[in-house]
This record gives sequence, C-alpha cells and structure tokens, in this order.
Amino acid sequence: MATESVATQLPVRTSNHISVHPLAPINGTEIQNAVALVRAQWPADTDLHFKAVTLQEPVKAEMLPYLEAEFSGSTLPKIDRRVFLTYYLRRTNKFHEAVANLSTQTVEFNARLGANMHAPGDGEEIEAMERIALADEGVQAELAKLQLPKGSHVVVDPWIYGADGVDDDERMWQCFLYMRDPQNSGEVDSCHYAFPLTVSPVISSVSMKVIRIDIMPTGKDNSVKEPKIYKPVGANEYLPEYQKLRTDLKPLHVVQPEGASFTVEEQGTSNFIQWQKWQFRVGFNLREGMVIHDVRYEGRNLFYRLSLSDMNIPYADPRNPFHRKSAFDLGDAGAGIMANDLKLGCDCLGSIHYLSSTLNNDKGEPLDMPNVICIHEQDGGIGWKHTNYRTGRAAVVRNRELVLQSIITVANYEYIMAFMFNQAGELAYEVRATGILSTQPIDEGLEVPWGTVVHPGVLAAHHQHIFSLRVDPMIDGYHNRLVYDEALPMPRSADFNPHGTGYFAQETVVETSGGYDIDYAVNRTFKIQNVHKRNPVNGKPVAYKIHAPPFQKILADEDSFNHMRAEFSDHNIYAVSYRDDELYAGGKYTNQSRGGTGVRAWANRKDPIVDEDLVVFVQFGINHIPRIEDFPVMPCEVIKVALKPVNFFEKNPALDVPPSTQDFNQSVLLGNEEKAGVDACCISSGSGKSTTATTATTSKL
Amino acid sequence: MATESVATQLPVRTSNHISVHPLAPINGTEIQNAVALVRAQWPADTDLHFKAVTLQEPVKAEMLPYLEAEFSGSTLPKIDRRVFLTYYLRRTNKFHEAVANLSTQTVEFNARLGANMHAPGDGEEIEAMERIALADEGVQAELAKLQLPKGSHVVVDPWIYGADGVDDDERMWQCFLYMRDPQNSGEVDSCHYAFPLTVSPVISSVSMKVIRIDIMPTGKDNSVKEPKIYKPVGANEYLPEYQKLRTDLKPLHVVQPEGASFTVEEQGTSNFIQWQKWQFRVGFNLREGMVIHDVRYEGRNLFYRLSLSDMNIPYADPRNPFHRKSAFDLGDAGAGIMANDLKLGCDCLGSIHYLSSTLNNDKGEPLDMPNVICIHEQDGGIGWKHTNYRTGRAAVVRNRELVLQSIITVANYEYIMAFMFNQAGELAYEVRATGILSTQPIDEGLEVPWGTVVHPGVLAAHHQHIFSLRVDPMIDGYHNRLVYDEALPMPRSADFNPHGTGYFAQETVVETSGGYDIDYAVNRTFKIQNVHKRNPVNGKPVAYKIHAPPFQKILADEDSFNHMRAEFSDHNIYAVSYRDDELYAGGKYTNQSRGGTGVRAWANRKDPIVDEDLVVFVQFGINHIPRIEDFPVMPCEVIKVALKPVNFFEKNPALDVPPSTQDFNQSVLLGNEEKAGVDACCISSGSGKSTTATTATTSKL
Repeated sequence: MATESVATQLPVRTSNHISVHPLAPINGTEIQNAVALVRAQWPADTDLHFKAVTLQEPVKAEMLPYLEAEFSGSTLPKIDRRVFLTYYLRRTNKFHEAVANLSTQTVEFNARLGANMHAPGDGEEIEAMERIALADEGVQAELAKLQLPKGSHVVVDPWIYGADGVDDDERMWQCFLYMRDPQNSGEVDSCHYAFPLTVSPVISSVSMKVIRIDIMPTGKDNSVKEPKIYKPVGANEYLPEYQKLRTDLKPLHVVQPEGASFTVEEQGTSNFIQWQKWQFRVGFNLREGMVIHDVRYEGRNLFYRLSLSDMNIPYADPRNPFHRKSAFDLGDAGAGIMANDLKLGCDCLGSIHYLSSTLNNDKGEPLDMPNVICIHEQDGGIGWKHTNYRTGRAAVVRNRELVLQSIITVANYEYIMAFMFNQAGELAYEVRATGILSTQPIDEGLEVPWGTVVHPGVLAAHHQHIFSLRVDPMIDGYHNRLVYDEALPMPRSADFNPHGTGYFAQETVVETSGGYDIDYAVNRTFKIQNVHKRNPVNGKPVAYKIHAPPFQKILADEDSFNHMRAEFSDHNIYAVSYRDDELYAGGKYTNQSRGGTGVRAWANRKDPIVDEDLVVFVQFGINHIPRIEDFPVMPCEVIKVALKPVNFFEKNPALDVPPSTQDFNQSVLLGNEEKAGVDACCISSGSGKSTTATTATTSKL
Repeated sequence: MATESVATQLPVRTSNHISVHPLAPINGTEIQNAVALVRAQWPADTDLHFKAVTLQEPVKAEMLPYLEAEFSGSTLPKIDRRVFLTYYLRRTNKFHEAVANLSTQTVEFNARLGANMHAPGDGEEIEAMERIALADEGVQAELAKLQLPKGSHVVVDPWIYGADGVDDDERMWQCFLYMRDPQNSGEVDSCHYAFPLTVSPVISSVSMKVIRIDIMPTGKDNSVKEPKIYKPVGANEYLPEYQKLRTDLKPLHVVQPEGASFTVEEQGTSNFIQWQKWQFRVGFNLREGMVIHDVRYEGRNLFYRLSLSDMNIPYADPRNPFHRKSAFDLGDAGAGIMANDLKLGCDCLGSIHYLSSTLNNDKGEPLDMPNVICIHEQDGGIGWKHTNYRTGRAAVVRNRELVLQSIITVANYEYIMAFMFNQAGELAYEVRATGILSTQPIDEGLEVPWGTVVHPGVLAAHHQHIFSLRVDPMIDGYHNRLVYDEALPMPRSADFNPHGTGYFAQETVVETSGGYDIDYAVNRTFKIQNVHKRNPVNGKPVAYKIHAPPFQKILADEDSFNHMRAEFSDHNIYAVSYRDDELYAGGKYTNQSRGGTGVRAWANRKDPIVDEDLVVFVQFGINHIPRIEDFPVMPCEVIKVALKPVNFFEKNPALDVPPSTQDFNQSVLLGNEEKAGVDACCISSGSGKSTTATTATTSKL
C-alpha cells in the first residue's frame, strides 16, 4: 500500500464504563485466565491441546433482563463471565469440554466427551499434517513413481477426513497433494491446484503418522491405475505478475467528506453500533466469526441474535477418497479463526472502520486477529422514486447501506460474508463464494459427468455449498410465530371471479418445530410474526419476512453419511423452539460427525412453536457445476438472504430519507461538448473503427 | 440542483463518418419525413393521430453482413432506411400500420388493421381522458353523492381498459378517481392514492365520451353499495417537505478523478460503447426504451439484440372493474415514451454520461426526450479473491460494473431498468420496482384476502409483475442451441457410489420451440450453446447460461383473458426460431388484445431450434402482496437476470483486472486513536447510553 490513509470524521467512541459487556468476546487476559483454570485441573506436566477458548454466552433468560435494563438505562443485573473451552490431552483422542467461570474463578464443568466427538482442525495441526505427509517414506515412494520434474515442490492441502462409517472412528486427516508449477518451483504462491497429484495420504491425529495412502482413480470408473509418469502441462497462475493486466480501468473512489454516518462504541471487546435508526452489538468468535446481537430499529426489538450457523460442502465424485470430501467449514475449522486480516483499499472501498479480535492458538495462548471485520457504508442505488407525470415533479431517495464484512479463507476457497442494513428497515446476509476450486487429476481427454475439466488433466468436481443462517428473532417482543403466505388462484364461479383472474393470499401457521420448504409455484413466503403487536393502521400482526434465494437441497441420498451429517441441508427452513446452546445447525462437533446432534434432531422434538421463543434456520446455497471460467480463481458468485418488514411499520420507513440531490451527491457530468459546454477539438478515434471522432477537452474534478 | 456540475475526462467522441447507422433510432428530421410520406397518402385535411413513428430495424439477413463488414472495417453494404408508423384516423377506430422507406421516399406498406387491434395510449390521450372524465355530468353527479369536502380536487388516473371479452371490441379507457388531500387541496403533488374514490368512468376513445360509470364494490363481495359520504382520513404524502427528514446521513460521493473507463462514440442518433473488452450499440425506441445491439466481447459475438420485450401486471381482485386491471406497460404505453428525464446527482451517482432521444407526439411531430439513459460505472464489491494461507499473500480484484439505466413512470408505478456489464464477461438485466401502489377504496375495518389495507379505507390489491427479457443470441456465431443442465443424484450401487453421495450433471437439448421451465429441485439451468465452437481446454461447447430468479407464473386461470393475453406469463423460458418482427412477447398490439399473436403462438409452431437462429425470452417477476411499508411509495424491490459465460473463455476472464490496491482505491481509515495514530480527546457520548465515550480528533479528507 503506497498511499498513506488518513483518519476522517470519526464514528468511534471508546467506553470505559462497562468493563466487560456480557456479550463481549473474551479478551486475551480472559483467555489466559480460563486456560489457567482448566490447566489447574490437571497435573502440571499435562500437555493440553486447546481447541476453542471462547465466550460462553449467558443463557437467554439471564441476558434478556440485562439487555432491557441496558436499553432503558436501569441498573444492570450482574451476570457471571464464563468461558467455554474444548481441548485434547495432546496426541490422544481424549477430547474434553470445560466451562470456566471467571467471575467465581471456578471450573464449572470439565468432562471428556464420548465416541465420535471430534474437534475441528486448527492452524498448528494443518501445518503439522503438511510436514508429516511430506516426510513420510511411503508417500515419498509413491511420489517417486510419478517421476516429477527435478526441483518440483509438492504442496499438501490437509482436509478434514469427512466420514463414511468405514473404519473411521479415529480422528484423521486426508491430504491432497499438488505441486507448484514445475517450471517455476520457486514461486511460493504458485497455483498448485493446476497440478494435482494422485497420492493422498491419510494421517492419524493421535499417532501423527501416515496410516494409509489412498491412490486416486483418474479414469471414468473407480479403478486405480498404475502410477503415470508426470507429463508437463502449462501453469495457470492467478497472481497479477503473471497476467497481462488491463490498462484501461480508471480509478473509482468512494469519498465521505464528512465521515461516515455510523458510530461504533467500543466497550472493551464489544462493539455497539448505531446507524440510521438501527442499533446492534457485534461479536466475534472462533467458530461463527461475526455475530450480531440485540438488533433494534427505532428502539424496537427485532433480532436477539444473528449468525451464520453452519456450512456444508459435499462433493459429487462418488469414488474413494473423494466421496469423503464433505466439509463443514465452520464446525470443522471456524469462520472466526480463518478470517482474513482485511486491508484498507484492497478488501474494502470507501471510508472503513475495522474491528479486530483475539482468539486462541493450540497452546491456549491469545492470538491476535487484526481487522477481521470491516464496516462501511455503500450506495445501494435508488431506494425509491416517484414522478407525478402531471407536474413532472420527481421525488427520489438513494438507498444507503451499512455493511459489516468478513472474509474467510478455507484452504482453497474464500467466502466473503456480509451483514447489510438499509434505510427501509431491511437486513440482509450476503455470501460471495470465490477462491479456488479443489481439484483432482483426470486422464487427459476424458469427460466425466461429476466434474468439469478446468485445465489439462485437471478435474474440478461438482459440489454443493449449503449455508445455514441462524435467525433468533424477537419481533417486537420475545414470543413470535412462524407463518407462511401463499398466493393461490381463486376458484371461478359465476358469482365471484367469473373471469378467472382472481387470486388470494392465504396464511398458514407453522405449529411445531420441523423442516419446511419454500415453494415458488405458490409464492410461499415465510414470515416471523408477533400476533400480540398489531399494525395500528391495518391491524395485521407485525412481522418480518424471509427472502431466501432458490437452492438445490443436498443430493446425497437420505441414508448417506453426507445427508445424516448435514442436518440442515434438506429444507429451506428449519424452525425450532429456543434452547440455550443450540447454535450450530450441523451439531456442536461436525468433524467426522454421525448426525443426530443438529437442527434436524432438534426439529424432531416437534415442539410447539406458536407464540413461543423460536429460532429459525434459513438455508441457502449453490450447486457449483464448475465452469472453466471459475479457474484458476472464481469470479464471485453472490447469494443473499433478506429479512424485510411486513406491516411492522406504518408506512415506508425510508420516507424520511433526505432526497437525492446534486448538492449532496456531487455527481459529475461526463458529456459531449454541447452538454458540457466546453471546447471541442479534433482527435483521431481510438476505437479501431473507421470513424473520425472528436472529443471535448477535459477538466478534472 | 444547487451545485453546478463540471465535465470531466471525456468518454465521448462524435463521429461524422456514417451519417446514419442502420440501427440508429430515427431522428427528428426522419420522423417529419416519414410522417409527411404517410400524410401524402391521404387527402390533405385528414386528421391523423400518430402512435408509433419509429425505426423499422433492418431484417437480420441484411443486418448481419453489415455488422460484420463494420467490425472488420470492410465496405459497408447499403441498407435502406425505413420507418414503422402506426396511426388512427383521429377519433375513429381506423387503426393503420405503415412502413415508409426514407431511402426511396416511398410508402412501402400502408393498411388498416383488423378488429381487436388497438394502439397503445399516449400522453395527449391520457390528458384528454382526465379532462373528459371530470367534465362529464354523470361523473359529477356521482361525485356529488360522496359529498366531498369543499374545495376537494379530484384526480383521474386513466387506465388502459384491459379486456374481458364482455362488450369490449371498442377501444376504451377505464378511469380511476382519487382526490388530493382535502385538507391541502392546493398541493399539486399530493399523494392522491391515499384518497381513492368509488366512481370509475369508462370512456370511448372514438366518441371521446363517458359511456359507462362503474361504481366500485368496497366490501367483501361484489355488491355495490349506496354511495357513502366521504369520511375524513389523514394524508399520506411522500414529498420531502411533509417528512421530518433524517439529519444523520453523511454524504457519499463516487469520484473518478481520471474520468470513466468507457467510451461513447456518437454516430448520429446511435451510440457505440466500448468498455473493458465489451462493445455494443445502444438504441432507444418508444416501446422498448433501451435496446442493446451487437454485443461483443473481445470481438467475439455474443448477442445480436437484447431488450425488455414485454411486461404484464395482472391484479388479484376479481370484481368489476378491477378484474380488467391487467396492464402491459410496454405494449399499452411504451417504456421509451414513459422514460424519465434523468437528473445528475438525483437518479445517478458518480461520473455519468447521458443519452437523449427523439420520439414523436400524436401529431407526428418530433418529441425531445432528454437524458433517457444514464451510463456510469459502479463498484460491485470484490470480484475475486484468494489468499494462500501458507504465505499470507492475498490476490484480490474488485468487480467494476458498467450500468446503463433508464427509469420509467407508468402512472402510479416506477421501474428502474438497467443493463449491467462486468469484467468477468457477465451481463445482467436488473429491474427495480418502485413508485406507488394502485389503490382502491375499502370499507373501514375490513380485511380481504386479495389485497392489503395500506391506509385507512384504502386497499392495495395484490398483483403480479411479469417481465419478459428478449435475448437474441449469437454465441460465437449465429447458430446456437438451447440446452439445460440438471444435477441429479447417482443411483447407489456396490460398484459405484456405494456411499450414496455421488451426483452428476446431465445436459438435455431443447429440440423445438416452446415454453420451458426452471426447476430448482434439480438445479435446472438453461444455457445457450454453440456446439461448433469448442473450448480449447476442455472441448465443451462455448455457452452462456441464464440465471433467472424464481417467480410465480400467472395465477389467472388458463381460460382467462389475462392468461390468453399475457402469452409469456406461464413459462420461465420461451424459445422460438428467429423471425423478423417477432419482438414483443405479448404480441404487437397488447391493448385490449385477445392473445394468439405473441410468443406462445410462435412457440406453438414447434419449429426445430437446434443449431438454428433462435431467440430466447426469459421471464421473471414479483408477486406483489403489498405490505404497508410499500405505501405511500415502495422501497425498491430488486430482481435481476444474469447471463454468464460457461466454458466460453479459457479461464477466469477477470484474471487480468489490475489488483485492488490502496494506491488505486484511495480508501479512508475510520478509526480509533491507536489505529489512526491521531490524538484523542474526551467528549460526552451522544448515544444516549450511560457510558463515557472518547473520540479521536478528526481530520477531513
């Protein structure tokens, strides 16, 4: 970054009043404190491998009175500060959960978990796996058979093992091997996905040894062939220095001369944000990354908690070892721990405020995570407009949006996640999928129906991205119901609807917890309603509706491990009664999971959820049938879920947004000479077309 | 507009070389010439009421050699310049079509059309209808019964009559009556939709007289009650002076210090645009508004012609007169003639170039249509990103977009339409629906299932917006096919897919013209393919896929006039063989149409369309179940169709976009004191929360 940035009008206040907000992510000192409390439970020389050391959010029954007291400015109830920890006795399968109460300095819970409960991977482990795979003699022997060019540099992508129920009770890693461009092995950022190798070692995370070497099928069936000698192909780099870059893109700056319209109040590690009648608190943790708490609009309750709950990426190739490629990026790794350190001017455009966080490493030490969230405003185009054609008078406002963005890197893939708020009381969650396809070798010239050849000898298998957004609502109060509207044709009769044109909307109440589906054929739209609060104009219950994009549900069959494990993957909507600690749609521990501990299991309680404290999980996703255009790095695929008010306000809530004027917006006319009123002079046309062109002189802004 | 705008780096060249490009919209002189030629066919005192006077685009067989010659710089074939005209003998039902050849100065075709062919409305007619309705004694008598407050100002919204087959061979208008806020009758821009009246006169456009007065039902059935004396309700204005405007929104400017990255080459009335490897020509006409011709990317053919073909808005209320509310905004009025005069800094943000046009009035005179299209670039967020977690090196580019926007006002409603191009070879068509709901009176306290009460005594009936985008492709050549991909589960067997996780993509060729549907359950995705051009890497046919959002098809039953007339409304995709003059999915004349002349009829030819010159109509829309938040003016509802390359390029076509850097983007850090490195001082918190807050000093950009 060559240009120094300057701070401008400042939206940030630092508060010293509340030392620790109950929803504040734990800080470095708290991490050390909690880890020390847990360590004290064990003999001094016990080597603990820490996984999560994270805030144990207070139970809702404690939190709600606190939030209301905070909102009204009354005395705040005291809530104990607790930390949730998971850890192994290092290099064993002894996986533990603990809860440390920092307020009482006690360990309230500490127990070893049962079979088939495995922790996510962590950075130190991934690095270890890379080393172990490469150091293994068997792996080296297999690589030797490929007769890779001299000086080749093999790169390891360790993957969570997935699960298929075949001899997989042990916690393992499956490694996928690639190499850097052999013509340019010194390039540490070579796109190795253009050079996949057939050797796939499996490593035990207990023995920390290679326990099996899978050799990949590369043909049209699942037979494994004799190793083929590496045949040179060209590189496919994504780095700018390997491209002939475009030279005709002019800069575009987003400038807020008076600063941004939002304020951030820092209360220790907690951030309280206010913007255009919205207020909420931002949290951040290892697993979910961004969490939004206590969302209110004009002081009215909307959402108790919003977060990406889970994600599953099952792959289409049915052959060993590919059938185990079914990643849960949040539960198997963590959206927080994988969050990018966002760079001003690179990841974010305009006037940006960054939030940082502190997570932990495997030794239970604090780990600085700088700039994991960026906050900025953006112009979202026209918000509303009307012109009275009789008078010609137009009223128009633009739609300003507040964006909280976080980007995660999950080995090959990137996800850009954003919560977006607008001035019409709408809230959206957007995911942009980008990064690099996970590739595998394929025989040259072969086509298979479960993947696309994206480079000579390189197959990118089809895969689904299935996301689950957890929406814990409190629409104007804590007891809500889920309903859905459908638009249905009216029957035709001589009396009513004689022309067959009529239709009507019909509302159905969702009575019990379960999985429910959108049906576009009947315009089925889910709404979260509060029947105890009625719209003063039309008497309808206040509500927020859910706009979810279409997606194909999981394709793995119902008896498959993929289906069992991805408990959220088979319905657009899961609705459950609220229980503390039920945050993750795929279950608490997704790594080599067996299912039965996630949202499908909770839904199967068939709890009554009408006018109760309910939680809604909204599923959305992409079935990614790769195009060659998605390699070596894919253009963002954007998907968005929106939550919009329905009879919650008395009129368009953006009616009071100041009109869009040139005074305010300072746009610039690009014009020809008549329009711009400046001199014209002759130049030759640069368009390559046989025309004589004139151009106006230019005046810079 | 208080601030004077200045012209900046100039993308416009004016060419004198080609006096008239064959695709150039006709200019004022040509309008006068064509009208004179047609007038000369009639006795001198014949009063002609002109409807369309518009370019008759050359047939494709003539146009393709021209475009290729133009592209290659060869000698251009001569193409005659023709104008298409429609007109009435004024105040008769004698509706004519004519084609005037300006090159030969002859009228090549001039004929009266048959029964049930009616012209769209025009501005002069709409004003006449307003006057006629209010001047009518019967109407005044009905209004008198309502005992409106003294000084009330009644406003007329003339509507196209729709059609129901009941005594409606004559061309008519149905007027909906409202009044301004009676407390403020002098406000010429009062939102009269908050004051709907029950009186609905029907006017013949031949006799120009009220021929019937419909009185609206206001209850739960179709009975018409005795006139009720007007009971005061409050106003619901959208104008800024009636709002308590927000004061906490800070300006946001989009600045391009070196100007925009696109060039516009003006060739008479035609505009040739180049931007980031794209090139195309922009047209504009009375009916479709914006038309995009001859789209190429890096010189490769993509689309011969793109335009919004049609739009239908059928309403849900089955009762007279509401069951006839079924507007075809393009065919019944015209997206071109209704286009807003776009204002710098109001409708467009950033560095903007405007295109103007010339249409015609009812006397066949040229009508200036200034600033009907705005062209600008916008930042579309991150385009792609990948971080190598081993080295921490991130590669990231932003997604710059080129937008061509036009806004139309159709009485109460507004549509903001945009063609959007990006750097990854993707093209999108976006519609934002805004404006005001068409309202009707309802008995106070009543709820009905075909509408929502949005104001006391005011019902906004449900309605569908169904759009049809016409895509005339030439993907790497003129002969293409339509196929669709589906993702299907693999059968499980011991041999292959033993774990039930596998799935595959299957391609199906669409053999004949017809209506086809997206099926999200199988991820059915339509692609336009050229099998004669293969991807050099993976051998697959080059293609563009169609991303269409979900929408509910028309709800009116199959025997209804609504269904018959909206020929595009029942399928996501219509594919037909190309024929000149088949541009409008609802047929050439939608006003009081009977069906049988649009895309359903063309599709029923069951023409072979494999590797032929085919045309695809993509349908999308909204079933608008009004919320009270949509009144008095609705926040934009955004829908978007995207066309994306599939195996068309050899890799991500945005790979050569220069990296996103602070040097280029000039973002600004909003931060607290440590981050920004500036002094901090104490101020009191303005958040209303009981915290002591500190803020950093500010430095303005």
